[in-house]
Amino acid sequence: MHSVVARSSFERALEAAITRYDSSAPITAMIRYHFGYASEAGDHLGKRLRPMLLLSVAEEEGGSIESALDAACAIEILHNYSLVHDDIEDGDRVRHGRDTVWAKWGTAHGINAGDSLCAISYLALLESDVPRPAERTVAMTRALHEANLAMCAGQGRDIAFEVEVRVTMDDYVAMIAGKTAALFAAACEIGALAAGAASARARAYGELGLAYGLGFQIEDDLLGTWGDGVMTGKPVGSDLARRKWTFPVVWALDGPPSPAREVVAERYARNGPLQPDDVAATIAALDALGVRDAAMRHAQRYYDRADAIALERAIDAGGRVRAFLAANVRRVV
Amino acid sequence: MHSVVARSSFERALEAAITRYDSSAPITAMIRYHFGYASEAGDHLGKRLRPMLLLSVAEEEGGSIESALDAACAIEILHNYSLVHDDIEDGDRVRHGRDTVWAKWGTAHGINAGDSLCAISYLALLESDVPRPAERTVAMTRALHEANLAMCAGQGRDIAFEVEVRVTMDDYVAMIAGKTAALFAAACEIGALAAGAASARARAYGELGLAYGLGFQIEDDLLGTWGDGVMTGKPVGSDLARRKWTFPVVWALDGPPSPAREVVAERYARNGPLQPDDVAATIAALDALGVRDAAMRHAQRYYDRADAIALERAIDAGGRVRAFLAANVRRVV
Repeated sequence: MHSVVARSSFERALEAAITRYDSSAPITAMIRYHFGYASEAGDHLGKRLRPMLLLSVAEEEGGSIESALDAACAIEILHNYSLVHDDIEDGDRVRHGRDTVWAKWGTAHGINAGDSLCAISYLALLESDVPRPAERTVAMTRALHEANLAMCAGQGRDIAFEVEVRVTMDDYVAMIAGKTAALFAAACEIGALAAGAASARARAYGELGLAYGLGFQIEDDLLGTWGDGVMTGKPVGSDLARRKWTFPVVWALDGPPSPAREVVAERYARNGPLQPDDVAATIAALDALGVRDAAMRHAQRYYDRADAIALERAIDAGGRVRAFLAANVRRVV
Repeated sequence: MHSVVARSSFERALEAAITRYDSSAPITAMIRYHFGYASEAGDHLGKRLRPMLLLSVAEEEGGSIESALDAACAIEILHNYSLVHDDIEDGDRVRHGRDTVWAKWGTAHGINAGDSLCAISYLALLESDVPRPAERTVAMTRALHEANLAMCAGQGRDIAFEVEVRVTMDDYVAMIAGKTAALFAAACEIGALAAGAASARARAYGELGLAYGLGFQIEDDLLGTWGDGVMTGKPVGSDLARRKWTFPVVWALDGPPSPAREVVAERYARNGPLQPDDVAATIAALDALGVRDAAMRHAQRYYDRADAIALERAIDAGGRVRAFLAANVRRVV
């Protein structure tokens, strides 16, 4: 495993990609702030899951880290463009304990800084020094734009959920497939393309990434309900307080009638945020319904699907991608 | 001139490009609404300046309309993504007499619909049926992303101007070069690339487009001050009421001290919108300073520069691009 080397190479490439488009425009300071380059501690925020996943696929397919670093930067920057915009759309003023860009500079600059990051993401790929046939560059750029559109579709569903009083499991899965899993899929597909894989083989990696992304989001939803102060700083019940439609709530309301289900249903039949005692009552009801086990079973089903795809399509034979995912994405074991 | 044929071909291609990415997501309705496809009258809003400019360059360079229609759609969709976001950033609730997307569906959906349009713009180019070498597709996609980043830089400056009490002519030109002229430049460069022009030749067209875009914006600023109810529905003094830093104000404050200049300076030394009597006083002062003539001289200087570029670089020999620009972009004669 070259993960430490890959990670430090990636961090250098990422800062170079961002610095390359430095200008006198006020957005540069916002972008550097968002990435944590402007803080005294010099802390680079985020787990870099998507670029590291991309690099693990590239290596599994026989490519070098260097030949995929530009794509790894592109996917991380695209992810951050979506975070900057999501923070505005969701009204989130704090991320990882720091003011979000819009909270610090206002909505107008926040939207515009996100738009800039979107452009820089693609330019990091299109204007890199990595030698590669133009056909491959087109395929990689196209996959990244498709993922961007899918993310928007997922986010559009999530925003629309805010005023719904019922969200089905199908709606929920369609939402997270776009909002989260599409970029995992793109990371895998683009990593394979960077290493020179044929398009059908790269798409198989994309399917594997999609399945993992779905499992990842379901596990992530548990953290938004039961909390994970250490890893993300999310307080207990944060998604419930905002009346978000997460796996626990959708699954609970999808089940047969019961007193516990009724507790959840009643809270989510109202619009607007939930008060602390309603959050506590909802968590107790979700616990009683066994939602945590259900979520882990569902996530596992997606991970099993990913393993089946790997076997059927004869990809990830060396197991490098599965090892990366097992170490970094499967969080609740 | 094939402009009527080109225009109707373009309109068909544009609706097809947008419809292609129809989905059940709520953004589709917003995008169709923004483009006017959802209105009873079926009115397609906008002058289509940028795609028609792109097609005129492609034809001048010996390309067919068909071989550049996908790029024409991409540039018009990118322009509209920027309009959807600008309306949020500027707080504009009405465009062409209709509610803007964010005014109708809220800020969150507005940002997300704009992001979707950005992705669809590039996909219209990357997933089109137009046969073209991959190297050319990469060059066109790259030019469009560079224009996007330049637009963001210009918009970032414009937003930052809102809290300034002095904006120099250099600052102003840098702002409109990004916000407006970069997309005119991209239209010309990409139109030439679509027709198969070499990159240096395509860039020369880009320089011509940049010069025209600068002149266009200066003329457009006159409409925002003295009004143009017929063409755009802009009321007299609309930019002044919002205390926008437009050519008339920047030029007036750049001049030697005078009573009229002092009237403008005093109004713009305050923050916040201008009241109706301040707007009237400012317009009278700008008239007294001869700003309209100055603006037309400045715009003419940029048009002369464009002509010089065409001559020096031996482009637009048939004059098709200049004829299009003279008929459609030079508005104040």
